[in-house]
Amino acid sequence: MKIAVSGKGGVGKTTIAAGLVSLLLSRGHNVFAVDADPDVSLGTLLGFTPDQIDQLKPIVEMQELIAKKVGGRGGLFTLNPDVDDIVTDYTLRQGQLQFLRMGAVKAGGSSCYCRESSVLNALIAVLLLQDNDFVVLDMSAGIEHLTRGTARGVDLMLIISDPSLVSVKTALVVERLSRELGIQKTMFIGNRIRRPREEDFLSEQLGRKNILGFLPFREEILEQSMEGDYAVNHYEIPGLATIVDKIAANSR
Amino acid sequence: MKIAVSGKGGVGKTTIAAGLVSLLLSRGHNVFAVDADPDVSLGTLLGFTPDQIDQLKPIVEMQELIAKKVGGRGGLFTLNPDVDDIVTDYTLRQGQLQFLRMGAVKAGGSSCYCRESSVLNALIAVLLLQDNDFVVLDMSAGIEHLTRGTARGVDLMLIISDPSLVSVKTALVVERLSRELGIQKTMFIGNRIRRPREEDFLSEQLGRKNILGFLPFREEILEQSMEGDYAVNHYEIPGLATIVDKIAANSR
Repeated sequence: MKIAVSGKGGVGKTTIAAGLVSLLLSRGHNVFAVDADPDVSLGTLLGFTPDQIDQLKPIVEMQELIAKKVGGRGGLFTLNPDVDDIVTDYTLRQGQLQFLRMGAVKAGGSSCYCRESSVLNALIAVLLLQDNDFVVLDMSAGIEHLTRGTARGVDLMLIISDPSLVSVKTALVVERLSRELGIQKTMFIGNRIRRPREEDFLSEQLGRKNILGFLPFREEILEQSMEGDYAVNHYEIPGLATIVDKIAANSR
Repeated sequence: MKIAVSGKGGVGKTTIAAGLVSLLLSRGHNVFAVDADPDVSLGTLLGFTPDQIDQLKPIVEMQELIAKKVGGRGGLFTLNPDVDDIVTDYTLRQGQLQFLRMGAVKAGGSSCYCRESSVLNALIAVLLLQDNDFVVLDMSAGIEHLTRGTARGVDLMLIISDPSLVSVKTALVVERLSRELGIQKTMFIGNRIRRPREEDFLSEQLGRKNILGFLPFREEILEQSMEGDYAVNHYEIPGLATIVDKIAANSR
């Protein structure tokens, strides 16, 4: 199953994506975690060092390799991660986790990330998964990854929203664009909930049946955010396990 | 003076940009407020209705007009908002405020925002300001507007950071890219401060002398964020007036 995590900036996408990856790993799945935002660092939250991440080849370079490999096979091809080293060359591996990133920060004024987005789009489309495999993509803030179609090939668009109107507004736009992209399933997660009426608010705005679950506001994340070690706690986002149960049930 | 407001998603860019615009207006300046993010709504915070904003022509259409107008004048030209209706045609006006937006939300998978970014870049560069005029741009979350060079022509990059390592990390990347773009001045604003040690943290990370000021965490913004009327209070962001004093002093 291929899952993209998106929503307005600052709603908790990367933390939730990392928590999702950790839970899936702890349940014995193979997981491809993809950092699809040149600015954020899903890799750090997953425990890779800055050095390891810096040394990782950016996926744009894959383009030529894929073209070479495809050769006479025409436009239709698949990548089987079990046998195709083209994938393993571009990933950091740790047990059943494989980590890829869209690309590093470029120089100011040098270029956009259109090419990276299009390679990522192709890569997601051609990855041939086994029943036990998951892809989790941590998308950029906002909507351009959707108008570009970067996450076109995912099975589930997981949209994070906190209980604010601006965040809900973005969430609903992301939902609409995901449908236009042809993504089969879109579901919401309500994050940073401090009181019941905030759950009610999100249920009214997004529709209760479209919400996979609610995650609490956690004071300790604010407390630890200056130290940068809040990553160590993401394994235990209260409520996330139930959400993963629902996702796993849906994937069968 | 041309000012861009940037930083990680969710740090308060749009709220601060709107507060800045309001303060500058209340001091008698002419202000061009530019929503440079297709997803957010600076216009709403400034008091325009969704209908007004939807009817606003997107600036990409300006491209041909500018080309036509420039004609024989070659590559170098300026737009004088006092006499050039090319600008007024694409703005919403309210007293001394003129509001422009980069573009509406497009269909999923249709295209990127490269063209919009490049028109915006050109527009900022050619706007001929009077001493009394300000341009305030509310940029997208993250860094792509910088690798694209959208805000190349601004005089001041105002980078917002809350007291978290992830937000600081983005702020420092934005600072570096702004320098690479040739932007003369970059300054930080520390937002969502709840206790003195958070100011200390930001001063250590960003350098005290680079910080224009600190703005407090405001519980009431969270409280009001479900109702969507928190805009009405942005005129009184405590501490922002002092920051605007410093910016105005710098612009002379």
